Amino acid sequence: MLNQTMLALGTKRSCIRELFEYGLKQAAIVGKENVYDYSLGNPSIPAPPEVNETFVRVVKEMDSLAVHGYTPAPGAAEPRKAIADNLNTRFGTAIRPENIFITCGCAPALISVIRALAVPDAEIIAFAPFFPEYRPFVESNGVRFVEIPADYTAFQINLEALEAHITKNTQAVIINTPNNPSGVVYSRETLTKLAALLDRKGKEIGHAIYVIADEPYRELVYDGVEVPFIPTIYANTIVCYSWSKSLSLPGERIGYVCVPDEAEDSANVFAAIAGAARICGHTCAPSLQQRVATLCINCPPDLKAYDENRKLLYDALSSYGYECVKPQGAFYMFVKAPGGDAQAFSDKAKAKNLLIVPGGDFGCPDYFRICTCVSKDMILRSLPTFEALVKE
Amino acid sequence: MLNQTMLALGTKRSCIRELFEYGLKQAAIVGKENVYDYSLGNPSIPAPPEVNETFVRVVKEMDSLAVHGYTPAPGAAEPRKAIADNLNTRFGTAIRPENIFITCGCAPALISVIRALAVPDAEIIAFAPFFPEYRPFVESNGVRFVEIPADYTAFQINLEALEAHITKNTQAVIINTPNNPSGVVYSRETLTKLAALLDRKGKEIGHAIYVIADEPYRELVYDGVEVPFIPTIYANTIVCYSWSKSLSLPGERIGYVCVPDEAEDSANVFAAIAGAARICGHTCAPSLQQRVATLCINCPPDLKAYDENRKLLYDALSSYGYECVKPQGAFYMFVKAPGGDAQAFSDKAKAKNLLIVPGGDFGCPDYFRICTCVSKDMILRSLPTFEALVKE
Repeated sequence: MLNQTMLALGTKRSCIRELFEYGLKQAAIVGKENVYDYSLGNPSIPAPPEVNETFVRVVKEMDSLAVHGYTPAPGAAEPRKAIADNLNTRFGTAIRPENIFITCGCAPALISVIRALAVPDAEIIAFAPFFPEYRPFVESNGVRFVEIPADYTAFQINLEALEAHITKNTQAVIINTPNNPSGVVYSRETLTKLAALLDRKGKEIGHAIYVIADEPYRELVYDGVEVPFIPTIYANTIVCYSWSKSLSLPGERIGYVCVPDEAEDSANVFAAIAGAARICGHTCAPSLQQRVATLCINCPPDLKAYDENRKLLYDALSSYGYECVKPQGAFYMFVKAPGGDAQAFSDKAKAKNLLIVPGGDFGCPDYFRICTCVSKDMILRSLPTFEALVKE
Repeated sequence: MLNQTMLALGTKRSCIRELFEYGLKQAAIVGKENVYDYSLGNPSIPAPPEVNETFVRVVKEMDSLAVHGYTPAPGAAEPRKAIADNLNTRFGTAIRPENIFITCGCAPALISVIRALAVPDAEIIAFAPFFPEYRPFVESNGVRFVEIPADYTAFQINLEALEAHITKNTQAVIINTPNNPSGVVYSRETLTKLAALLDRKGKEIGHAIYVIADEPYRELVYDGVEVPFIPTIYANTIVCYSWSKSLSLPGERIGYVCVPDEAEDSANVFAAIAGAARICGHTCAPSLQQRVATLCINCPPDLKAYDENRKLLYDALSSYGYECVKPQGAFYMFVKAPGGDAQAFSDKAKAKNLLIVPGGDFGCPDYFRICTCVSKDMILRSLPTFEALVKE
């Protein structure tokens, strides 16, 4: 006798993970060089040398019991302080170490926040296009997942549609900027309008509507575009961060939740997040990674290759007749599927060993996502297939 | 508007964690040498040198993208194979890599199994004394937590009480051997009787009753005592393992679930565990730790200091008039509280900066737990306080 929801979640897997694992299998059959895998946001730029040097230094020089021992559930003292200091220096905030809860990456951070807010009849809103896992993360906690249609002109936020979807049960909106899958960065103007709307609606319904800011791509931006720090624009913001992309450590599972004092009921929100983490099996985040990520907190990501890929793919696909918004951040491009049915298009591509993710699960069934965190070599080898597909 | 269950779980913390964090604060006030902290099972023996050498070697020699990148959700291929091979060599089993799901330590392993089995009206049984977190892990998933009173003679399993508590809704029993908090190892005789009972009752109620074997202390045994591998005695066993104690890596969050093919509905159980892990925020276990733990899988733990502590404390406390079962494994001792009320006794001890965990949350309110994974020095300094307390 098994829980059928869990069985379904484990059987019908994330479409991204499915494609990624299909790619691994297919590579074993037809050769790695003949599979063009644009499925998974697995950084293709290695961790900066400083990161690996720090791993070695911490293991060699720090007391082994301290490095590998349990830390308090929200994290060790120095790492929490380093995060608060870093945010305060960069954004002029007054975040305390006690506002930081270090997590095993962004997924458990998001889930803990969602569970903390999961009251009866709760609703949590996301803006298409959105990371597909938001849906199971929200729905599996008995919360209604409310999807706001995309702003197809610029992939900013469709504020009119948002206003129409807010009810007395709206607990939070999830914001992901720089955005996966569109690569768009929400502008200060968009966020300021969003803040005003949420403030006004929050007063109307009599309780805060939290912004859950999912920020793994914060440091991945191009052409000097600004990524506003949302707590400085909207007080009721809970930030979820991960070093997966900025330090190229996605497998190492290290991130954090920040609940600034300015957020409504901040101390209790923090406690409820800690409670939710506890019953998701969080004991502490990997202790070695806590040290290394925060000792490297000022280490800039090396974005040169991603930027080159972005330009190369954008220019090539545009020249073949594909339509997409030029990404300003992250390492994704969201492209309109020729013919309008991204699932069918993705299936055709898959038959040619080109793995692109159809946008249905992102809330945009006409679009597909490609990850630009791949090797330039693979891009060059794959371009004829992209060209052939659009001509079909 | 916050989820009140999460708030309560985050506010009323685990009594062990509370004591541990109290100890850290108190040490800052009265000096580290004046706090006798027996609260937390944080290994006091450092990781074997081979482990730290392997961390350094993997970081320096392996491809950085492979080391730090996402692995498939159940783990990277080589680590899964290493685990299966190790179990098969030691226990004569036929476990495949596909039966292994690598987790961020034992807590998320247990929770994923519990959620997989969380059907309507489900009940999961634990035997007192039990690890206190079992209760919130079970209850927070809507499953009834059924507590079997302790076998106070030898701290084995009270099989008569177990039989009386099995209903048609019994989904699993959690076994923890070597046991936290008693240090007792369940004998082959106990486990064989348990298996016979569960087989018979499973047939009666028409579905398997799984054993969830929580095994972080498997390698920590003294005097050559046997720790039977439960799947070889009872087919419907799901093993949860962690390297926290065997390699002294509790902060590094690395363990696994093993669902052998012999367990009823094995493939679906595995899939449901994967689904449950997914919505607890599991993306993969820390990739570096996956490599290091499994490259060191044959590295024997250094138990000399634990064994010395065990004998020192058992002999000293017995000589003062305390009653307890001599532990055969793990690094705990479960001691009868003089006066019979362990909470009151623990409070008196706390006032003298001696931190011992009252047994109420373990299902035995007359007993307290002490962790013997501490420094010998601290033990020697604390003995006069133990002696004074029993005389009061």
